[in-house]
Amino acid sequence: MFEIERKFLITSDKWRDSIFSKQRITQGYMTVDNEINSIRVRVIDKEAWITVKSAGELKRQEYDYRIPYPDACKMLASLARGNIIEKIRYRILIGEFIFEVDIFEGVNEGLCFAEIEMTREDEIIPLPDWIGEEVTHDHRYYGSYIGQNPYINWE
Amino acid sequence: MFEIERKFLITSDKWRDSIFSKQRITQGYMTVDNEINSIRVRVIDKEAWITVKSAGELKRQEYDYRIPYPDACKMLASLARGNIIEKIRYRILIGEFIFEVDIFEGVNEGLCFAEIEMTREDEIIPLPDWIGEEVTHDHRYYGSYIGQNPYINWE
Repeated sequence: MFEIERKFLITSDKWRDSIFSKQRITQGYMTVDNEINSIRVRVIDKEAWITVKSAGELKRQEYDYRIPYPDACKMLASLARGNIIEKIRYRILIGEFIFEVDIFEGVNEGLCFAEIEMTREDEIIPLPDWIGEEVTHDHRYYGSYIGQNPYINWE
Repeated sequence: MFEIERKFLITSDKWRDSIFSKQRITQGYMTVDNEINSIRVRVIDKEAWITVKSAGELKRQEYDYRIPYPDACKMLASLARGNIIEKIRYRILIGEFIFEVDIFEGVNEGLCFAEIEMTREDEIIPLPDWIGEEVTHDHRYYGSYIGQNPYINWE
């Protein structure tokens, strides 16, 4: 029920040596306020989910449910606030840890960062050398912020 | 996928003669803005749903999914914005039409209204004589508004 996640910028392409999966993610947000719960509809291939996340940085409540793909398409087409986010998510295996690298497309072309999900807030994660500055506490890297403020407009 | 619904005030207790079902509904909203989609978590007995509705008056998109009861309780306890709404919903059979009468409790004690769901926006519904003023277009009767603005504070 809780997601504990840290986010980092990426300093090189070396993560590409350890890719073990790749998927295209399309998602949109039903809400616009980053200070409150975010409600996300996500599509991967022909599967879809609705996810409620509490506001927060490192640790957030998360409730995730499968929904019918056609419903998700309709919600993304007609209810989503802001821009639809398109990204490729790569999973990278480093020792026993899985990093996720998100490479954004469309209006967010050029944006990329890595995430790692942890089991405890104080878990020690050995960081590979392609991991750069931590942005866990930078609200611009929230999915819901990105949906409202495409990367092409960032300063 | 669309809900077409009219709302009315109630002028007498005569609807009580035609009750055919009664249920207690507990619900809360994950969002606070009535201008955008509302995301509602609802519990009836030990069953629970999450519902996304587009903003609108008479006709709204609606997507409704069953979710685990314990999840719903946690979301209502820790993520809901504003007040939790408690009401008794009575279903009233009038000819071939089903009216729903909602009697609110707690901070909304005294609030009650009737709803009827229609299959078309121009459907002709014969209104029983206990039906009063139509409030379909009055935003105060939105569930999400009621959650933010309890009836005890209405002017």
